Amino acid sequence: MPRQLVLNAFIHDVGHHEVAWRLPETRTDVQRDVTYFQDIARTAERGKLDSVFFADSPSTFGSTVARRPSEILEPALLLSAMAVVTERIGLIATSSTTYEEPYNLARTFASLDAISKGRAGWNVVTSADLTAGANFGYTEPLGHAERYARAEEFLEVVLGLWGGWEDGHRIADKANGVFHDPAKVHALDHVGEHFRVKGPLNVGRSEQGHPVVVQAGSSVPGIALAAKYAEAVFTAQPTLEEGQAFYAELKAATRKAGRNPDHVKILPGLVPIVGSTVEEARAIEKSLDDLVVLERPLAALAEQIGVPADQIDLDAPLPTDIRPASEIEGNRTRYELIVALARREDLTVRQLLLRLGGGRGHRTYVGTPEQVADTIQEWFTSGAADGFNIMPAIYPSGLETFVDHVVPVLQDRGLFRRDYAGTTLRDHYGLPVPAPLGAASGAGVGASSGGAAATTERTA
Amino acid sequence: MPRQLVLNAFIHDVGHHEVAWRLPETRTDVQRDVTYFQDIARTAERGKLDSVFFADSPSTFGSTVARRPSEILEPALLLSAMAVVTERIGLIATSSTTYEEPYNLARTFASLDAISKGRAGWNVVTSADLTAGANFGYTEPLGHAERYARAEEFLEVVLGLWGGWEDGHRIADKANGVFHDPAKVHALDHVGEHFRVKGPLNVGRSEQGHPVVVQAGSSVPGIALAAKYAEAVFTAQPTLEEGQAFYAELKAATRKAGRNPDHVKILPGLVPIVGSTVEEARAIEKSLDDLVVLERPLAALAEQIGVPADQIDLDAPLPTDIRPASEIEGNRTRYELIVALARREDLTVRQLLLRLGGGRGHRTYVGTPEQVADTIQEWFTSGAADGFNIMPAIYPSGLETFVDHVVPVLQDRGLFRRDYAGTTLRDHYGLPVPAPLGAASGAGVGASSGGAAATTERTA
Repeated sequence: MPRQLVLNAFIHDVGHHEVAWRLPETRTDVQRDVTYFQDIARTAERGKLDSVFFADSPSTFGSTVARRPSEILEPALLLSAMAVVTERIGLIATSSTTYEEPYNLARTFASLDAISKGRAGWNVVTSADLTAGANFGYTEPLGHAERYARAEEFLEVVLGLWGGWEDGHRIADKANGVFHDPAKVHALDHVGEHFRVKGPLNVGRSEQGHPVVVQAGSSVPGIALAAKYAEAVFTAQPTLEEGQAFYAELKAATRKAGRNPDHVKILPGLVPIVGSTVEEARAIEKSLDDLVVLERPLAALAEQIGVPADQIDLDAPLPTDIRPASEIEGNRTRYELIVALARREDLTVRQLLLRLGGGRGHRTYVGTPEQVADTIQEWFTSGAADGFNIMPAIYPSGLETFVDHVVPVLQDRGLFRRDYAGTTLRDHYGLPVPAPLGAASGAGVGASSGGAAATTERTA
Repeated sequence: MPRQLVLNAFIHDVGHHEVAWRLPETRTDVQRDVTYFQDIARTAERGKLDSVFFADSPSTFGSTVARRPSEILEPALLLSAMAVVTERIGLIATSSTTYEEPYNLARTFASLDAISKGRAGWNVVTSADLTAGANFGYTEPLGHAERYARAEEFLEVVLGLWGGWEDGHRIADKANGVFHDPAKVHALDHVGEHFRVKGPLNVGRSEQGHPVVVQAGSSVPGIALAAKYAEAVFTAQPTLEEGQAFYAELKAATRKAGRNPDHVKILPGLVPIVGSTVEEARAIEKSLDDLVVLERPLAALAEQIGVPADQIDLDAPLPTDIRPASEIEGNRTRYELIVALARREDLTVRQLLLRLGGGRGHRTYVGTPEQVADTIQEWFTSGAADGFNIMPAIYPSGLETFVDHVVPVLQDRGLFRRDYAGTTLRDHYGLPVPAPLGAASGAGVGASSGGAAATTERTA
């Protein structure tokens, strides 16, 4: 079989376009409705997509509560409810290494992996956003380097916990009263700069070993982290050329880190706005852009570039004398992207803001199903992508259109599966099942009894 | 309608008896099987019980992995999957204030409350157990006082976050682009000794306001915390007299704390072992006790009481010269209970260990459905209980027997509902919907934009 596309449905409330909620047909009561999300999972599975994928932030998402739906249920709980009404679709959630305890996070995702029989993925992010940070005691953002140092240690702990259970640990010998083989369950005994975690995790490995590790930072330390750990990378790439450069760089870095570059799937975001004709697609785009109020995004941009809003002309190009990216402590990659986009396409500030509102910095493509398939195929076959995170501007209709009209074109071209070949997310992505780390770490953990005699049995 | 019993199904793997997994009929593969837990929820709902209730620990549960099933999926994820296949049953999980961030915990339970349309409850515990603590950086347990100080501040933060959304916050005015009324969404701005949390939570209130607050500590600070915050209390009470004394003490403390004592439901644990005759019930008990291996519980007891195991005679009473309760930093109440039980009933050490293995310190009652109903009725009508946490020695059969044989007797006596009158856990418990705290806290939160201009609108 020829190389196959990876296609995730990236979920965002009622659509990735920030004013999707204001369209006449959009429901305004979906945020708390688990059946809305279950239906999205069913639609994605009908389209044989690889996964559904939640962004997340433990905050009102950097939005004002006035301007946007701001209730965001905990994604792992939603995915658990979505897992039990589907059989194949992968289930990925974003969770930050900045605001969690690694034991809790490892357990949550291992539990989702158990509930779904091997369909879970964790999108690893670090967070500088103070809207969220202020909910966790931060009064200033962690620096870029510190965030990534913490993230790397966090990942080591999570992978160590996930790897602590060797196959065959469950003996369930009723006659002799032995349930797990203690020589096959391993403590971690991690003592590091940020964390001290003994283990073992209280959840073992799944049908796919452990959850797929997804990563979403494209800065220099982000690429270094991805090369070392990521099995899929979600990235914003505005042009084919930039996509190719990033693809080559990350695959090379992965090879250099001693890993098989085929085992990291590079997935740019793509916001498809699809109509049966180009005109129909453009009309959908216009119906969205007409609803955008620029005042607030302008204020945000002004703050980012360090120029007062009242000195910015909406119908002129971005000012030239702006804050350098090196002074950005938050999402530096995104800032560079925004500035590069404006310069490259010679956009007015108004055009830039509309573009950002539509896809949050990701590439928007407006056209017919065939044209959307064409651009996907072009990127896929010219070394810019292993697939895409599909980001419908409007949910659920945009996903339904993609599944019903774009996917069949990709299938007809032999680029995408007509049915699932396996059952796990690793099966869909074509990733190997990682070996447990337990055997490598040496000692099995025997006993650790609560508040009482802690005689630790250690058997090699 | 006369006063009605509260009955929760307290879930614990394949049963509360520690050797339930060794019975011939017990499945040994349920720990990772979400359908096992969904079936328990369906059974409890068939019996019109108030809730299913998970104990939890972020560790291998103080057990040795050799001796017991030690995989424990994250309970909130299980409850989410159980919520979507049921319509009425309440969904309670234990989560410790010692190992979590309050924002994350508040969000998880508020999300479960949204997914279940108002059926969630949080069982608040504090943790001294180093088996779990060592997974979160602790090298020695937090002291009793420090744990409770942290717990109280944690509760204040969680309740504040839950209370931040006033009714009517969702305007969803598409024409003017206003989704939430910012005057009705309130930041918390909590700055305390243990936590600094800005808020607002990114999940609003549910059909029952916020999750029911359950509490499980019966020590002096535990009772103080319960009097102030708890809406249900799970407690171990070995005799009717002790149950009555605890009931009177907690109701009085609740009144003294300025709350209506009817709004805290006191629920002792009860391990029913039910047979159609007393002989049949006793045979079930014996089949369990015969499987208990005393070596390890004896070692644990020896460590607790501070007497070497080889100096303890299994067939003699508990030694008299043992460690005083005041030296116990962990679960002090449980220690006192164990010692009192041994002394009161003049148990040999062997009898004591069998009793503890059967119900983990809770009261076991062996008999026919009518006899079990009798003891429930006696406690309920003589000021010792508002209901019970039912802890079947064997799951799922023990729950099925309780639902099919004990519940009908209680219904015939007019002590328990024949059907649900409402839809939320508060409806079942007869608890009021708490008012949002938002209005009291004064300021509405307008804007907080991610990494950019944070113009905060504040409208009184």
